[in-house]
Amino acid sequence: MGIQDEMRQVADQAREASRKLSRISTEIKNRALKEMAEQLVNQADYLMGENEKDVAYAKNQGLSPAMIDRLTLKESTIRDMADGINEVAALPDPVGKVTSMWRRPNGLLVGRMRIPLGVIGIIYESRPNVTADAAALCLKSGNAVILRGGSEAIYSNIAIGRLLQKVLRANSLPEAAIQVVDTTEREAVYELLQLEEYIDLIIPRGGEDLIRAVVRQSRIPVIKHYKGVCHIFVDADADLDMAAKICLNAKTQRPGVCNALETLLVHRDAAPRFLPEVARQLLESGVVVRGCEETRALIPEAEEATEDDWYREYLDLILSVRVVGGIDEAMDHIARYGSLHTESIITNDYANAQRFLNEVNSSTVLVNASTRFSDGFQLGLGAEIGISTTKLHAYGPMGLEELTTTKFIIYGNGQVRT
Amino acid sequence: MGIQDEMRQVADQAREASRKLSRISTEIKNRALKEMAEQLVNQADYLMGENEKDVAYAKNQGLSPAMIDRLTLKESTIRDMADGINEVAALPDPVGKVTSMWRRPNGLLVGRMRIPLGVIGIIYESRPNVTADAAALCLKSGNAVILRGGSEAIYSNIAIGRLLQKVLRANSLPEAAIQVVDTTEREAVYELLQLEEYIDLIIPRGGEDLIRAVVRQSRIPVIKHYKGVCHIFVDADADLDMAAKICLNAKTQRPGVCNALETLLVHRDAAPRFLPEVARQLLESGVVVRGCEETRALIPEAEEATEDDWYREYLDLILSVRVVGGIDEAMDHIARYGSLHTESIITNDYANAQRFLNEVNSSTVLVNASTRFSDGFQLGLGAEIGISTTKLHAYGPMGLEELTTTKFIIYGNGQVRT
Repeated sequence: MGIQDEMRQVADQAREASRKLSRISTEIKNRALKEMAEQLVNQADYLMGENEKDVAYAKNQGLSPAMIDRLTLKESTIRDMADGINEVAALPDPVGKVTSMWRRPNGLLVGRMRIPLGVIGIIYESRPNVTADAAALCLKSGNAVILRGGSEAIYSNIAIGRLLQKVLRANSLPEAAIQVVDTTEREAVYELLQLEEYIDLIIPRGGEDLIRAVVRQSRIPVIKHYKGVCHIFVDADADLDMAAKICLNAKTQRPGVCNALETLLVHRDAAPRFLPEVARQLLESGVVVRGCEETRALIPEAEEATEDDWYREYLDLILSVRVVGGIDEAMDHIARYGSLHTESIITNDYANAQRFLNEVNSSTVLVNASTRFSDGFQLGLGAEIGISTTKLHAYGPMGLEELTTTKFIIYGNGQVRT
Repeated sequence: MGIQDEMRQVADQAREASRKLSRISTEIKNRALKEMAEQLVNQADYLMGENEKDVAYAKNQGLSPAMIDRLTLKESTIRDMADGINEVAALPDPVGKVTSMWRRPNGLLVGRMRIPLGVIGIIYESRPNVTADAAALCLKSGNAVILRGGSEAIYSNIAIGRLLQKVLRANSLPEAAIQVVDTTEREAVYELLQLEEYIDLIIPRGGEDLIRAVVRQSRIPVIKHYKGVCHIFVDADADLDMAAKICLNAKTQRPGVCNALETLLVHRDAAPRFLPEVARQLLESGVVVRGCEETRALIPEAEEATEDDWYREYLDLILSVRVVGGIDEAMDHIARYGSLHTESIITNDYANAQRFLNEVNSSTVLVNASTRFSDGFQLGLGAEIGISTTKLHAYGPMGLEELTTTKFIIYGNGQVRT
């Protein structure tokens, strides 16, 4: 069978499975999830054995130690995967929830009920834990999932998929509810992305290049974010100790993630009091500062920021800093250079706090808190399947509910239109 | 300027306008809408004069009387347009609504606030009233709109657009909030559909061919439905008088629309009592019945239904009828041949009513009511910009809220991640 037919068969089976899945009770889904968590822990030796093949190949190919670290399955990472699945089991099931219901003048009772999207394709890179994680979220929300991980992790992903499918079978659930694409051929992704009649949503997870390639090729809706150029604006009358604490946290607590701070905007009136002190703390933490002219006048160690810097997602201990005339200039900068991801204002000015929340249309907007809270778990969604900076369907961190849609349900007693 | 640059300029201006529009107060938007309604009525002579050019050209081209009728603006249709705009003005503004808000253990107050999508492109066919209608809904929901109607209505659409823009100017609103594409070149649509950096959503309104062409060409998300193959299932213990009344209404009240009944499924136990009587009423109303073998045994006048009939959206006084063994067979038929639009069960069996509502995943599912209620106005959304059978973002009739998305807003007091 050619790769095109093979992918069509995978997608067709997923579609069939999704029809059955949408009717499975929460109890059965939760039982299967808990057994999956158990299964992974019980079969840790098998998983680590398969994972070794990937790691050996990766070392052979000269992959960076950081990449090999992400790829490696240890007992502790397997336990973490299992814990993650158990957490998903404990979450409320979004399927079947009636989100609102109202009575029409003619007596019709009209409501909206959550249902699964159907079939979800996940295209991701090296971390094998995404396999278990995404499979659990899709199963809980009644969706069939097609998982296409990176070729570096192929043995690990296939092994995880096998264990999950074994549990599906044992619970009389359709095996095709969770499918790991078992070929490393590049064309497999392209072929999957053409199957709009079978697959309802594609979620790419990985670097900007991967995501752009998926968007370019896909005929299926894609929910994604390319990058997170997150801003903090320190207003004139901010609590400057709080501001420094938040900036340090947002930049340094985990600089390699999308909700880390990349550009700091400082009100001109606060800059002389704020910048030297925050710079001292940043420099102590190993952060390289790149600033506008006014910034550099206040921070001698700062390098010159070029126009290009304002667009950059460093994902590293680098911070660009700009002095602005006020909230309007700050919001203009964000609108021009931002990525619609996450922005925070640090202020004690009530009107400015409200303006920033209302007028900045990034997917997450905060007052007096770190950008690092832009995360499904931190916001209380209970899980995160990804972050969207596309406004359609979901905007910001996506939890289980974002893997569903609503249909209209209507109770009548003989109504006709006149 | 070439057509590509021209469309890019239109889209760029729309994007600029949308940034301003998202902050305009409800009061100003409502005032502008009311003035637009007035303007259309006051300038009826001008509109009818421009419309005459379209009508003359259409007659010259030999368009059908039905199409010319849809195209023609009379005083009454202009008044209807104005009434429609006033109704939109009276609707609640979805923008800025906080749909939910919760407290996190660390004290963060997290909410979701509705914001406009941004720029919406509407691609439609001959009815000029869509121009006013769609412009009003987009303005009310804070979105900029690019309107591309059929070439048959170009003078009428441009004239309507001019009047609406005049009101925008008079209210210091950005003129590019409502733009009518003033070229009839076919490439204009293709070029618009490539501009994913500027346009957030495309809504095509018209026949299946138009919609399929838009989906094929677009790099921008499209919300659409291709067709409405709507079903009614008459269960064994349905109230048969109610069932007949509902079937007649769903098939004959307005057969040319997408929520009209196309296929009737009847429980085998009810068929001998139900089919001859409902057929008599249908035939009297001029409906042609096409049936399966069992149906034809009970309705001598029925023609033979072929496999192809079960997929057909007749949009006409034709009905396909099939006898089924029960609710499972009915739901299987709907899953196989249906279009995810609208299905209704007529039953007095409580368990079957609940099963049908829960298990049929079409965008609108009813019990004991006509399929004709699948409509934004009838369901109480206050308006309708279209109907979606794509599960992403919106599913079923779409009102003002479906022209918005939600962002996360977060009130903190110094929280950082640990």
